[in-house]
Amino acid sequence: MNFTTSDKISVQKIEKSRINEVDFDNLTFGKDFSDHMFECDYINGEWVHPTIRPYGPLTISPAAKVFHYGQAVFEGMKAYKDANGKVFLFRPDQNHARINKSAKRMAIPEFPKDIFFEALHKLIDLDRDWVKPGNGNSLYIRPFVMATQEGVSASPSDQYKFMILLSPVNAYYTGDVKVVVAEEYSRSANGGVGAAKAAGNYGAQFYPTNLAREKGFQQVIWTDANEHKYLEEAGTMNVFFRINDTLYTAPTSDRILDGITRKSVIALAKKDNIPVEERPILVSEIVEASKNGTLKEIFGAGTAAVISPVSTFNYKDVTYELPPTAGGYSTKFKKELTDIQYNISEDPFGWRYEV
Amino acid sequence: MNFTTSDKISVQKIEKSRINEVDFDNLTFGKDFSDHMFECDYINGEWVHPTIRPYGPLTISPAAKVFHYGQAVFEGMKAYKDANGKVFLFRPDQNHARINKSAKRMAIPEFPKDIFFEALHKLIDLDRDWVKPGNGNSLYIRPFVMATQEGVSASPSDQYKFMILLSPVNAYYTGDVKVVVAEEYSRSANGGVGAAKAAGNYGAQFYPTNLAREKGFQQVIWTDANEHKYLEEAGTMNVFFRINDTLYTAPTSDRILDGITRKSVIALAKKDNIPVEERPILVSEIVEASKNGTLKEIFGAGTAAVISPVSTFNYKDVTYELPPTAGGYSTKFKKELTDIQYNISEDPFGWRYEV
Repeated sequence: MNFTTSDKISVQKIEKSRINEVDFDNLTFGKDFSDHMFECDYINGEWVHPTIRPYGPLTISPAAKVFHYGQAVFEGMKAYKDANGKVFLFRPDQNHARINKSAKRMAIPEFPKDIFFEALHKLIDLDRDWVKPGNGNSLYIRPFVMATQEGVSASPSDQYKFMILLSPVNAYYTGDVKVVVAEEYSRSANGGVGAAKAAGNYGAQFYPTNLAREKGFQQVIWTDANEHKYLEEAGTMNVFFRINDTLYTAPTSDRILDGITRKSVIALAKKDNIPVEERPILVSEIVEASKNGTLKEIFGAGTAAVISPVSTFNYKDVTYELPPTAGGYSTKFKKELTDIQYNISEDPFGWRYEV
Repeated sequence: MNFTTSDKISVQKIEKSRINEVDFDNLTFGKDFSDHMFECDYINGEWVHPTIRPYGPLTISPAAKVFHYGQAVFEGMKAYKDANGKVFLFRPDQNHARINKSAKRMAIPEFPKDIFFEALHKLIDLDRDWVKPGNGNSLYIRPFVMATQEGVSASPSDQYKFMILLSPVNAYYTGDVKVVVAEEYSRSANGGVGAAKAAGNYGAQFYPTNLAREKGFQQVIWTDANEHKYLEEAGTMNVFFRINDTLYTAPTSDRILDGITRKSVIALAKKDNIPVEERPILVSEIVEASKNGTLKEIFGAGTAAVISPVSTFNYKDVTYELPPTAGGYSTKFKKELTDIQYNISEDPFGWRYEV
């Protein structure tokens, strides 16, 4: 891959910002986009023409392979602004490594690290005013790659487009999250693409999630496809369970996303001498722990949601209530994470990255 | 869904056909497209603006959900021309039913049958000269639906685009097909989307198929994700096994596509008093049958490939040779199917549909 920062990013700036058209206090997640976007094409075996230009529509063949074969992967990141107006990313090296891991599984060429970072720097610098300070406010960053070759034969594309979009957001979930444990539908299997942020993994969850919503649940906690006995992840979040004072979460595998918030929670827990076990977790263990009062908390962890406490879970049409979360691990980890992200606390792990 | 044929399809014809630019004797599958295409948008809960216009690029938001969440499904059909210039489809009602079944699993609204058929009629009528006669020649038809709402939150789109593209093709596979039986990677699981023609199912197969190709195999026969003990399908084809004079194929399930060529082969076999068993097939049965000489044939069945005989299969690094196919079931079914498709034989099942 002959591609280094010597291939300059060309920049075409907007003539007039749209920033005053946006109500930053009442944002719908992922609906508004900043003034600029980044794109870079893969043609003849090379990433070429890195460009920042005004956010706007693409011109693309209706036979582009992404439409037909779902050959696409993405990442989710956020930029946070501190009280002095400095802007930080959170562990962006992890997002770069993961989009390339996802890309490999989907037969998509890897994207060079230097251009990934140069694009983030230049793009966020141009749209710095779109990052609003204040806990919960951030600029959501969506890098993605899609197959653009024109052709309806089921084989890997020879052309791709890598893009970065920026979307100002408030907090992702509001209020209590009620979840249902999957008994019929499944998200991924051994040997599949569950560990990749592959586009199709998400669309595949919409129908069973709709069924759950009709019954009053916001999210599904997926279980193993084979027996529905083990708890896996929630599709847009990894899931943690606290029994007594120990934290449990499913181990990463080719079925489960290696979440950056997940691994950060584990690191924080270890620093704080909280016992953490990464091991397969039976649904029956959690039901039993709920019944005998040792299940203290369930929470989701992900970039969009940060830490999302679960108020009830449903399994086989029985609803189990969780105790109130105040003072629990979820509150503690959310504060520790966001204090690092917003440059309020020290950063003992070196996770902050100024842009 | 307030949508009937009273909503007329608006037609914008090309000014000059591109048909003379195409070498119809040397087509690459799915690379060339006819003069016109059909599109119809789903907005505010209705399918609106059915339009035929010159084949060409779309203008679409980079935040369209199809790029991020793979919410897209498709179909594969063919139009065949007989010696008198009449054009036929093969069981198009099945394609319509299946795209809606796929759509439901991917939380996509169903597409009305009357417009599906009216669009096919009008589109193929306009591009009739692109259907070339002669066995193996056909006009491949690609209906598909994709999520077009602008937004990077992982939830179902509220806007969609349904399209039909036409691509002139010759035969899909040439020569012997060597396959490898999957031992590590998997295509689908119980409760997943394997039975849907969901875009992401195909992109997910590219990487393991690339690994197989590097070892000299053209296709992977997928096995159950749990134990890799049972033979399922080949991703773009269902698979049949002949042991002695009995034909075996895996039963349809939520892991296996309900193939139209598959069900047509089963109907032809029953008509011809060939015993057919639809049941789970162990890899070990096929290996044993190969060793003791009772395994006579393996062949794939699908719209693109029609019937595709397998010359060797590889399992756990051992290659098993199949006997020559001349005079076998694959030759017989391919002739019976294509004779019906090209209006050469009687059509006892009523499968032909003139357009």
